[in-house]
This record gives sequence, structure tokens and C-alpha cells, in this order.
Amino acid sequence: MKILGIDPGLAIVGFGLIEVEKPNAPKLLEFGTIVTPKQTPIGDRLKTIYEDMHTLIEQFQPQVVGMEKLFFYRMGNLVNVAQARGVIVLVLNQQNIEPIEFSPPQIKQALTGHGNADKNDVQEAVKRELSLDSIPRPDDAADAIAAALTCWLIA
Amino acid sequence: MKILGIDPGLAIVGFGLIEVEKPNAPKLLEFGTIVTPKQTPIGDRLKTIYEDMHTLIEQFQPQVVGMEKLFFYRMGNLVNVAQARGVIVLVLNQQNIEPIEFSPPQIKQALTGHGNADKNDVQEAVKRELSLDSIPRPDDAADAIAAALTCWLIA
Repeated sequence: MKILGIDPGLAIVGFGLIEVEKPNAPKLLEFGTIVTPKQTPIGDRLKTIYEDMHTLIEQFQPQVVGMEKLFFYRMGNLVNVAQARGVIVLVLNQQNIEPIEFSPPQIKQALTGHGNADKNDVQEAVKRELSLDSIPRPDDAADAIAAALTCWLIA
Repeated sequence: MKILGIDPGLAIVGFGLIEVEKPNAPKLLEFGTIVTPKQTPIGDRLKTIYEDMHTLIEQFQPQVVGMEKLFFYRMGNLVNVAQARGVIVLVLNQQNIEPIEFSPPQIKQALTGHGNADKNDVQEAVKRELSLDSIPRPDDAADAIAAALTCWLIA
């Protein structure tokens, strides 16, 4: 089964695709980011996210998608992240996928056993669960992989 | 020139279409709402907004679109409104329209001369500017018409 994790954002959307086939350990297939430049008008940025997300889903064909719920943000950034997130949820719906949503503490709990673990603990858990040599970069991609792993661990 | 005003939301998107041809007074052509039920999954609600907004723009062919910037909301509602707003901005971009955005005080100032006018003052100004017999209902439609009128008055 292929699970796609998404870390929503307007400037950077992180994504990570894992494969889980029991009894094997989960395997990292792909990860990366969709980046939209700050100087670009918001409509163009949302269109880039819309089109790139459609391309990703068609290419990866995930059976399950996990993503973070919006939690605490500064007001200005929250609006941008939520606007981008709305477009991502729309694309998933158009691709007949209903994402599984986790709060940040749920992801931390699933990966480290502690709901208040710090970013580094979560990233180390991602590295360990997938037997990687190093932590995937950037953080947005690592966060997306953490969301995918959370689907596998608790959903 | 046809100006479309939009009041973004997840549960209710208000819209109002006006025509302005100097030296005539502005004329109200259409107004209404797109409603998505609370029990429906968010992805389906965003898809309804996406498809209905495309239909509206294709039908109305507005030259200008005005909409409210997000301002003060309760956190939970802000995320929902912003997610819907992201989808609306995407549709406008796909239709080659960049909306003109106004803060609520800008709209109040344009319509009543006071940036801190109350809702009723703004609605009365909408009624007066368009020579209507009554205030358009629901509020979401009246707010959308106010955004359209603001384009005409100050943009």
C-alpha cells in the first residue's frame, strides 16, 4: 500500500510517499516540495499548487493520504496556509481521496510516544522508522513523511 | 462594465453582480448564495464551491471582481473561510481574473463614509446606491454586493 503524506503551505508544500507491505518495514519511495515564490500573485501560487498536486497524485497513485490539521499559527500565515490547504483538499476530492487528518500532537505521539516531542525527535523517528542514513530535507518534506508514517502507525 | 462582488465562506458564499455604465447609476443584476451543508465532508463542500464558482463566472462574465480580505474571525471559522477562499481565488485565477481585495473598514468607509459603520448602515447604503426597495437577503449576498459597489466607488 502506498501512503502519501502532505505538509500543507502556500510557500512550500511538503510531500512524502511511503510503501508499507507487511511484514516488511515501511519504505520511503519519494519525497520533495512544491515551492511557490513570494512575489508571485496568490492566484498564480494557488494554481501552481492545484496543478502540481494533481500531477503528484496521478503519478504516485496513493491509496491513503495523511496530512496535518492546522494548529497554532500567526494570523497572517494561518490565512495563507489555510487557503493553500483548501486547494489541496479540493484536489484530493477531485481525485476521490479523503485525507486522514492528524493534529501535530497526534503525529508526535505516534512517532515518538510523546505528544509534546520536539521537531528533532520527530525527524529522528522518521529516519529510524525508514532506516534512512540522514533526516530528509527540507523540514516540510520530513513533516510530510511523518504524516504518512502516522497513517501507517495509528490509522 | 459588470462587477462581481464575493463574500467568501465555507457554509455560505455570497455573490452580487452589478452593472455600472456612466452616467447611469449602478444597477443590481443578480445576487444570491452558494450554500454547502455542514454535514458534508469538507472536500465535497470545496468541490461544490469550485464548480459553482466556475459556473457563475462563465455565466456572468464580470470584468472586475471585488472581495473582502479575511479579517477577525474565531480561529476554527477562520480556517474554514480561508480554505474556501483559497478555492475561490484559484477559480478566479483559472478564469484569468485577479480580484480586488478590500478590508471590512475599507468597504464601510466607501459605502457610508465611516470605517467603523455597523452592518445595518452598510446594508442601507447598498439599498440606497442601487435604488432597491429592500435590503438584499441573506447578509452574505448583501455583503457581496457591498464589495462590488466598493470596486465602483474607490477602485
